Amino acid sequence: MFKSFHPPVRTLMGPGPSDVNPRVTAAMGAPTIGHLDPAFVSLMDEIKQLLQYAFKTKNRLTIPVSAPGSAGMECTFTNLLEPGDKAIVCQNGVFGGRMKENVERCGATAIMVQDAWGSAVDPQKVEDALKANPSVKLLAFVHAETSTGALSDAKRLTELAHQYGALSLVDSVTGLGGVALDVDGWGIDAIYSGTQKCLSCPPGLSPVSFGERAVAVIKQRKHKVQSWFLDMALVMAYWEGDGSRTYHHTAPVNSMYGLHEALVILAEEGLEQSWARHAYHHRALAAGVTAMGLNFVVKQEQRLPQLNSITVPEGVKEAEVRARLLKEYNLEIGAGLGALAGKVWRIGLMGESASQTNVLLCLGALDAILSDMGAPINSGKAVSAAMAVYKQ
Amino acid sequence: MFKSFHPPVRTLMGPGPSDVNPRVTAAMGAPTIGHLDPAFVSLMDEIKQLLQYAFKTKNRLTIPVSAPGSAGMECTFTNLLEPGDKAIVCQNGVFGGRMKENVERCGATAIMVQDAWGSAVDPQKVEDALKANPSVKLLAFVHAETSTGALSDAKRLTELAHQYGALSLVDSVTGLGGVALDVDGWGIDAIYSGTQKCLSCPPGLSPVSFGERAVAVIKQRKHKVQSWFLDMALVMAYWEGDGSRTYHHTAPVNSMYGLHEALVILAEEGLEQSWARHAYHHRALAAGVTAMGLNFVVKQEQRLPQLNSITVPEGVKEAEVRARLLKEYNLEIGAGLGALAGKVWRIGLMGESASQTNVLLCLGALDAILSDMGAPINSGKAVSAAMAVYKQ
Repeated sequence: MFKSFHPPVRTLMGPGPSDVNPRVTAAMGAPTIGHLDPAFVSLMDEIKQLLQYAFKTKNRLTIPVSAPGSAGMECTFTNLLEPGDKAIVCQNGVFGGRMKENVERCGATAIMVQDAWGSAVDPQKVEDALKANPSVKLLAFVHAETSTGALSDAKRLTELAHQYGALSLVDSVTGLGGVALDVDGWGIDAIYSGTQKCLSCPPGLSPVSFGERAVAVIKQRKHKVQSWFLDMALVMAYWEGDGSRTYHHTAPVNSMYGLHEALVILAEEGLEQSWARHAYHHRALAAGVTAMGLNFVVKQEQRLPQLNSITVPEGVKEAEVRARLLKEYNLEIGAGLGALAGKVWRIGLMGESASQTNVLLCLGALDAILSDMGAPINSGKAVSAAMAVYKQ
Repeated sequence: MFKSFHPPVRTLMGPGPSDVNPRVTAAMGAPTIGHLDPAFVSLMDEIKQLLQYAFKTKNRLTIPVSAPGSAGMECTFTNLLEPGDKAIVCQNGVFGGRMKENVERCGATAIMVQDAWGSAVDPQKVEDALKANPSVKLLAFVHAETSTGALSDAKRLTELAHQYGALSLVDSVTGLGGVALDVDGWGIDAIYSGTQKCLSCPPGLSPVSFGERAVAVIKQRKHKVQSWFLDMALVMAYWEGDGSRTYHHTAPVNSMYGLHEALVILAEEGLEQSWARHAYHHRALAAGVTAMGLNFVVKQEQRLPQLNSITVPEGVKEAEVRARLLKEYNLEIGAGLGALAGKVWRIGLMGESASQTNVLLCLGALDAILSDMGAPINSGKAVSAAMAVYKQ
């Protein structure tokens, strides 16, 4: 009746998942062992250390939540907020809106700071909001907005939060591994990420890290965390027990194998080298996009190298272009989300996908399809423009 | 600094994860595709149909939650309960206690029905509680108690719930695929399970199913579900959209490959045949355990074939036995949990682990180690007693 599934081989240049190194999928296919096996406990310790490396932090409470990035977001909010609390939430894309949902579902109030989709969060507006709301518990913002490709100044925003006595809570789902991030250096209090972006691991886990101030807030809670599954006090008894771990939930063993391997690969390359590689291939992609006459949504100095939102040219059916890329080139790029749905494409250069092969394939394919559709672009220029960057 | 991880090859006879068929781990190691890829959307449809088969249900709202069983539990409670609601929770092991935590964290009240650890839930006590609490919204109980190995009568308990106007919410994390379960035939309103038990898939996903009455309750909610990640109204827009799925969270793509393959294997064997296989190997294991002179915690007619709690003989250091099984035989069995910690071993015969090879390995190893430790057992009888069952 039902047959085994054999996925097509795609090139993944959407907003995640990104291409996965075969070492990582091979690791995921290794034999399952018990989640309390001493060998697995050692693996967990190494994952913690490797995540501390990737986040640039010494925070003890640095672990992968056993569920995708959305659960990591919920984990940070639900552990830090209690009913009646106030939080300032910056919105400059889809994920600020999701943060608001999270704040409200914790019984807290979200004070919104709005910026245009495609712009960075404006520190001045944030400071005004902090000044106007002295009793605010935390400031939440998206470091790397996956829906637009805008990079916000997490260091400056965290400084502002601290200046006004608030914690900083940072979404770096798309940032981690792909762009400068220094949790301890910048003093970030709580942060969450995902595995399927610049770590180039299949989706399913959400690295989080809580600093000392955040841990103190968790310890002083008056109400139990509303989620049993995400209650860090319980999760930590499993991740931090001395020798004998307390069973909380059954960890996704094979997914942890994959994350470990992806982090080993990151450490082999070097974190700063990974950031530089993302920036390098972005320059080549941007040269090609610009040569075609297409425009970026985000201005250059606020642009994430790993997530490139490109405006769909006048008269072009954007979904048809993506469908053809997938069908003819086995190439996935992303659609616009929310306010940008139908208006942009999102081209990801995350992790393994940040490569010369991918950049050239994508530019060549876009050029060919748009030319074929009679779109108003400068045909036949994109690949050479990117190659000019690679040849420098 | 850090090296690739190569797990030891274990035989998994604890309370889960169970042994995984190499077809499943191979499936998990296939190339990642996008979570909105048409090929992935087809896979999701097949997973739904295969889960409907495994649960014996036509419920449309039958999907795997993108996180382990504990999140599946939380998903059912958090969608069905609102602040001020009352729920009857049956406790006859660890997981009834966890249900109570879930009820209370939803702002609802848990009315507890207690039974001894190792006994089935007593329908008479449940009926008394339902009678005494006419405004109760749901009855929650564990079909297959992983902490003790007791099987409760889910059909009878569901009938009682309905007789008194309550929904039934069933934990069958360890039941699904290993013992008779008929969601539609028994009228179960909401149920959750796990992948790492009798489905023999690595941990990380939690199949859930909601019937019509439960869906109606969700649709009539006055408060938003407190968990954004687990809000079924949002999750379903992703799982049930017509053609174009609404992005909710990024599904754990490779874990879904594994679950699909595990369900295909189940369908190939046949659901009832899988139940019968679990019962068959249980009889052989029980013959060996009894021949050794060891005792089961649960009486025969309430015993789960797939989870065998055995009382640790007087004077035997139980952790030392498990450590030797792991070190000398690469064999994992489970420790006692909660009230049974230190007092029992839990031997799992789940999914792929329900095999003659595993039964004989486990009995031979236990016999050898206990004999070597001078434990008060009948040495040298266990393997032949099990073989006598296999030769019948």
